[in-house]
Amino acid sequence: MGLGRRRWISGSSVYNDVLSIPNLEDRIRPTFTKTANSKLSILTWPTPPRNVLIVKKRHVPVVRGALVSLARHLKGNYPSTNIILEPSTAHSVHHELDFPVYTLPPSESNTPFPYTQSTYPRTPQLNPRQTHIPQIPQPSTSETGDKAINVVEELGPGGERLYHDKTDLLITLGGDGTILHAASLFSACRMVPPVLSFAMGTLGFLGEWKWEEHAEAVGEAFAGGAMVLRRERLKVGVYDDDGKRVTGEWEFESIGDAHAMNEVNIHRGKSPHLAIVEVFVDGRFLTEAVADGMIIATPTGSTAYSLSSGGSIVHPSVSSLLLTPICPRSLSFRPLVLPADCVLTLKLSAKNRAGKVEVSVDGRHWGGIGRGEEVRVWAEKIDGDKGGIPCLKGRIGGREDDGWVGGLNGLLKFNYPFGEEE
Amino acid sequence: MGLGRRRWISGSSVYNDVLSIPNLEDRIRPTFTKTANSKLSILTWPTPPRNVLIVKKRHVPVVRGALVSLARHLKGNYPSTNIILEPSTAHSVHHELDFPVYTLPPSESNTPFPYTQSTYPRTPQLNPRQTHIPQIPQPSTSETGDKAINVVEELGPGGERLYHDKTDLLITLGGDGTILHAASLFSACRMVPPVLSFAMGTLGFLGEWKWEEHAEAVGEAFAGGAMVLRRERLKVGVYDDDGKRVTGEWEFESIGDAHAMNEVNIHRGKSPHLAIVEVFVDGRFLTEAVADGMIIATPTGSTAYSLSSGGSIVHPSVSSLLLTPICPRSLSFRPLVLPADCVLTLKLSAKNRAGKVEVSVDGRHWGGIGRGEEVRVWAEKIDGDKGGIPCLKGRIGGREDDGWVGGLNGLLKFNYPFGEEE
Amino acid sequence: MGLGRRRWISGSSVYNDVLSIPNLEDRIRPTFTKTANSKLSILTWPTPPRNVLIVKKRHVPVVRGALVSLARHLKGNYPSTNIILEPSTAHSVHHELDFPVYTLPPSESNTPFPYTQSTYPRTPQLNPRQTHIPQIPQPSTSETGDKAINVVEELGPGGERLYHDKTDLLITLGGDGTILHAASLFSACRMVPPVLSFAMGTLGFLGEWKWEEHAEAVGEAFAGGAMVLRRERLKVGVYDDDGKRVTGEWEFESIGDAHAMNEVNIHRGKSPHLAIVEVFVDGRFLTEAVADGMIIATPTGSTAYSLSSGGSIVHPSVSSLLLTPICPRSLSFRPLVLPADCVLTLKLSAKNRAGKVEVSVDGRHWGGIGRGEEVRVWAEKIDGDKGGIPCLKGRIGGREDDGWVGGLNGLLKFNYPFGEEE
Amino acid sequence: MGLGRRRWISGSSVYNDVLSIPNLEDRIRPTFTKTANSKLSILTWPTPPRNVLIVKKRHVPVVRGALVSLARHLKGNYPSTNIILEPSTAHSVHHELDFPVYTLPPSESNTPFPYTQSTYPRTPQLNPRQTHIPQIPQPSTSETGDKAINVVEELGPGGERLYHDKTDLLITLGGDGTILHAASLFSACRMVPPVLSFAMGTLGFLGEWKWEEHAEAVGEAFAGGAMVLRRERLKVGVYDDDGKRVTGEWEFESIGDAHAMNEVNIHRGKSPHLAIVEVFVDGRFLTEAVADGMIIATPTGSTAYSLSSGGSIVHPSVSSLLLTPICPRSLSFRPLVLPADCVLTLKLSAKNRAGKVEVSVDGRHWGGIGRGEEVRVWAEKIDGDKGGIPCLKGRIGGREDDGWVGGLNGLLKFNYPFGEEE
Repeated sequence: MGLGRRRWISGSSVYNDVLSIPNLEDRIRPTFTKTANSKLSILTWPTPPRNVLIVKKRHVPVVRGALVSLARHLKGNYPSTNIILEPSTAHSVHHELDFPVYTLPPSESNTPFPYTQSTYPRTPQLNPRQTHIPQIPQPSTSETGDKAINVVEELGPGGERLYHDKTDLLITLGGDGTILHAASLFSACRMVPPVLSFAMGTLGFLGEWKWEEHAEAVGEAFAGGAMVLRRERLKVGVYDDDGKRVTGEWEFESIGDAHAMNEVNIHRGKSPHLAIVEVFVDGRFLTEAVADGMIIATPTGSTAYSLSSGGSIVHPSVSSLLLTPICPRSLSFRPLVLPADCVLTLKLSAKNRAGKVEVSVDGRHWGGIGRGEEVRVWAEKIDGDKGGIPCLKGRIGGREDDGWVGGLNGLLKFNYPFGEEE
Repeated sequence: MGLGRRRWISGSSVYNDVLSIPNLEDRIRPTFTKTANSKLSILTWPTPPRNVLIVKKRHVPVVRGALVSLARHLKGNYPSTNIILEPSTAHSVHHELDFPVYTLPPSESNTPFPYTQSTYPRTPQLNPRQTHIPQIPQPSTSETGDKAINVVEELGPGGERLYHDKTDLLITLGGDGTILHAASLFSACRMVPPVLSFAMGTLGFLGEWKWEEHAEAVGEAFAGGAMVLRRERLKVGVYDDDGKRVTGEWEFESIGDAHAMNEVNIHRGKSPHLAIVEVFVDGRFLTEAVADGMIIATPTGSTAYSLSSGGSIVHPSVSSLLLTPICPRSLSFRPLVLPADCVLTLKLSAKNRAGKVEVSVDGRHWGGIGRGEEVRVWAEKIDGDKGGIPCLKGRIGGREDDGWVGGLNGLLKFNYPFGEEE
Repeated sequence: MGLGRRRWISGSSVYNDVLSIPNLEDRIRPTFTKTANSKLSILTWPTPPRNVLIVKKRHVPVVRGALVSLARHLKGNYPSTNIILEPSTAHSVHHELDFPVYTLPPSESNTPFPYTQSTYPRTPQLNPRQTHIPQIPQPSTSETGDKAINVVEELGPGGERLYHDKTDLLITLGGDGTILHAASLFSACRMVPPVLSFAMGTLGFLGEWKWEEHAEAVGEAFAGGAMVLRRERLKVGVYDDDGKRVTGEWEFESIGDAHAMNEVNIHRGKSPHLAIVEVFVDGRFLTEAVADGMIIATPTGSTAYSLSSGGSIVHPSVSSLLLTPICPRSLSFRPLVLPADCVLTLKLSAKNRAGKVEVSVDGRHWGGIGRGEEVRVWAEKIDGDKGGIPCLKGRIGGREDDGWVGGLNGLLKFNYPFGEEE
Repeated sequence: MGLGRRRWISGSSVYNDVLSIPNLEDRIRPTFTKTANSKLSILTWPTPPRNVLIVKKRHVPVVRGALVSLARHLKGNYPSTNIILEPSTAHSVHHELDFPVYTLPPSESNTPFPYTQSTYPRTPQLNPRQTHIPQIPQPSTSETGDKAINVVEELGPGGERLYHDKTDLLITLGGDGTILHAASLFSACRMVPPVLSFAMGTLGFLGEWKWEEHAEAVGEAFAGGAMVLRRERLKVGVYDDDGKRVTGEWEFESIGDAHAMNEVNIHRGKSPHLAIVEVFVDGRFLTEAVADGMIIATPTGSTAYSLSSGGSIVHPSVSSLLLTPICPRSLSFRPLVLPADCVLTLKLSAKNRAGKVEVSVDGRHWGGIGRGEEVRVWAEKIDGDKGGIPCLKGRIGGREDDGWVGGLNGLLKFNYPFGEEE
């Protein structure tokens, strides 16, 4: 296996190095065997996974500590494991580990690295599979302050391809936001690796395992045989007046369309005028909505923006698309739940008075559409081993479907009646 | 009007008689061939249907006229057709037809017939296949007035069995309420005959054909090959503290459980105390609801009571159960959409202060449950040719799925923004 | 426990007796001086209050203990105080006090006393001002069990008059339900005595003081000068087709109309048919509502049933009536907030298919109305020292208006976002 | 009276001229006498009104025709009337009138006039009170097309002062949007002239008179004695971290604060992050809201944006402020109705991750606030003849309060139940 060039820091007992992902061997593709429940499958590995991408919640010291523990646990118990981290995490954490970590080469990352481009060997000289990434001084937390929270590491299409080609298993440490971010790294991929998610303190709708169970959870994930819920995603495209596809601002045509885990939405943004939107289901006219905006959500996203906007909560096993208006002008426009196998079209009416309406994918700004243009959204097909986000079912709420049922009561505060407080 | 018992009126060209359903030959069972859309099937008859039950909206003269026309059309174009009517309709209409109509024998109907039981030949003497039902003086409309509206012809289990055993095809003339009533005649049956529904003026969510299309619609229904949506129903049972099934007040164990087309709901009724209900999904505790009541609805029922109570609108092709609270004490208890293959349990908590909580099935009072007792609701399985209500897809909104999409805009007044009126 | 009728227990230091309210001198009527805030007034006593009615939450031992402490504190610090209790409380508690307590004579209470009427001296012989009420064996708690929770001590008009004529100050120990119950004892009165409410553990919308502050609170209440919020009540009457007032089942014409603190509502109850109600504002037709029911609430009641049914939360200083539909058939029927000086009429339409629709006042069943009959509701006038429920403003949330603002966040769980749990 | 310089177009029988508002004499200030209903007053003029500003809905030919008729009617029946129009209306319409119309001088209007600045006499030479405004070629409708809809004539502070100083009576022709626009011309004024509003076809919440009644309505308005509803407005200010007032982008400090007729709202706009807002009532902390935005509305605005966002409908006579969240993260955050005499503060929390949150006044963008900054909103005081928008009560729904009740049913489609269509 590729072990890469190593660098020893003299006078240090710690072996700490950051290598480039292309050094890793290609991923091992698992298979998913169907169960009686059409959404649940059983995970099988042809050979045990080796390349593990760990994504963590940012700026929380306890999660950083867990990451270090987890990396050591993996390397100690499964020695052929290679740890992949996002660039800023890799550079911040690697010196605490006595084995190398892998990350994107800078050319494939949008992170503003604190050195000039020229100092970085853009074309690896010695061994294309063993590119070395120099250690980077990290900004101190006191320097970053609140503003650092807003920095999102944007990922170019090359980076997405590298993650896609090399990651066997994806582990998240954090809440729903962390899972959503991890999923966004694979938004252009048809074969997202299995996801093992640890709810770190904050329990969310998507977290499956408690941190205390990590040894056991990792064991299950490596052995295969684990139960997996393949969460459906949305695909989204923008089309012009003539039905020709318009490329979004953030799209990876080379490896596929963008996918949303939670929702696609359009919104008038700062415009003083309500959006006037013609809604079609499979090309059939449904209604003309006059509203702040419209949300198209997956069942996974039914507990996110759609819920704030009045949508129902939909179990992840119900194959469906949610169509939820945002502040509609019509008092009778209630949220709809439509079959997953239809195409929803939101076409900006010629009557629209605002210039552009904003399109967002999983809460990130994606572009704008003008009059006559339309957004089409449809559910990704789950086809053999392709499609969906395969999430390992965990202990929270039970091994089979339905941790969802077990957790909902606490998450939604159903039992917090108004007007009573101890 | 009422001219007493007779068989042939000499010198009259009108043959008008009311015969008993047992005289008819047994029904012809159609088969349903699956299509790509899992909810749509193609109807096939082994031999053409003969026994047609027509159910009409009550107290609307134009609908009565349509019934007479339809019966004549059927008899004229499909001479071996036998017309079955509900008892009061049969007696009110038969003298306008020159062929006999069939209906339930009085012993199987709860209609308060205006003669004593002894005058009726309980065991038919002459010909068991040709039992004759005496003509019954009907109350004049002036006598019934408004109160007649409330009279529902309750049906005993024997009556339901007769309809079930003899009806090849079910035709409804009226709105959603008429379809709901017709479905209730088969609520204990696993094999509801195909339903052809005409929206008579009032367009509802369920009506599929316009009256003007009746010749064509009947042609399609008789020929076979028509597209059918099999609407899922709910099954409901009441269980005591020990998990033993308690018989409801209105149940037909002999031929099966009761089914609901729209919803099952519990409600505190007149009690001053909110119902305290433990909710379980597949035996797993979801929450304790404190509310006026709880609704469990089918997608078909998502546009009925559940919608008034804040539920989403769910397309009939989305396999699901809706759980919608009625005036819950918790402000965060939002309506849920759950998989169709789970069992929902509403158990009256020991903390409940009201004596009994009322259970209703499709809006009809069904019984009450006390503390520790529970209502279990699950979706009827659609299994081969059994299960669901097979509704012939019509012209309203297009032949394939989705008249639903085409009609929703008008039905829900999505395009009636507030604050504007011409 | 209950050892039968006695007066002085020889050799005992405990004086424990239950006397009849008519023995007390008539109440002292306070005056209310207006402040800049039209809803807040300053309480002034012509002479210090003496007769204090204490109403407590039932079946909670800690509240029973607080009652005993409070009674001793009052008698110890304000020796001319007379303690009035509800009959069952009086009989359960008096033997722990070394001074007499006062309560309703049995003839004025609907409590099912466990002795025959004849054994009770209906006309007090010895001293009309010192009528003695025999001690009554109380059912043990083990006997009553859960069912006891449901027993409400219904009050006849004579009882209400006695409370009204004798009570200077009303103290409640418990949550909102206890205040609501205490207010119901004066529902036919135009001059409700000032109310001092202690939130016993359970913090509600109406509780003003914590138990720990009771010495201070009582001091303020006795001294006068306290700030008082006069909560508006509703008046309710039922009228027939000809506009003639129909007496409700529970009404006290002798001393005035019934008043509601929270809301008046109509509901179809067990009827399978939606109520069809014509709504008028000051005799002007507003709409025809087709719904499960309708709620007319005070701002005080805006956090009760109306909130569960989708109504807004209205500050108690906003003079208004809330009209909130319960599960309306029209999706556009939103809750309304109307001026306090209008009369709202809910008239059961002739189209109504249910026989009777239930009327409730503050959650208690009040009667039913038939087709053509109507319920009229209007706000009680606050006129000089008459009208409203004068509630002493407390420490919870600050002395001036607005404990309401301070408490709302905790009561409504505004800061419990969904999807996050530590 | 100032009659201005005139220009006769030779060969034309039409006297058509556009004069500048400063030529007019100063306005006549009416008085308002209170009635029993605290919101309704009686209008009295010291001398009959002369200067009438007519504001019309744009781009609707029938409304343009009505404007011409109305101007002729006024001039014919009340010869000393001077007609004031908005600049674009004045230039489009004056040639159909045989008397001059008055409008803002270009220096006080932001309308992009189609000639260069140098050609226009910026300082009137002859007579400062008789400035003449040259006739301006108007763009043809074919040129403007749809885009013209979006052009709003922005008004500088000088223009607002001119309207304020000269207008006796304000007449609107159009729907609620037209009234809102007309009110915005006086948003910095404490003494808005009486408003007479004609609903032109489109019936809105605010329109009071039908066009057919215009002769009668104008008669009432000129004679005095008419009933007037003084609609409360909101005042709004932005304050920085230190409590110092920050000037908005659109404010007229010289003559007073900005006022809103419907609502002030903040919204995250295009930001991907929810706004985190601390809400205070009279400086007392209410809650921390995490939401798309927050609306503070008047009762007049309760049927506008607040209603789309789930707020209740509040009668204009209920003195109150509505606080309605937009897509809040907390499911229990329900709309609030607060007293009109409190100050509501929306302070952007330091936790806020978006840079700026947008502030809008009556749907128009007003500026943005950053972390630590706050928006304060309070109701304008109605004080003697100052404050509020005095709207002449009309025939629609009756002369006294309550056309509101009469119109609501139609406007909100309360009687359009779902699922029924003829």
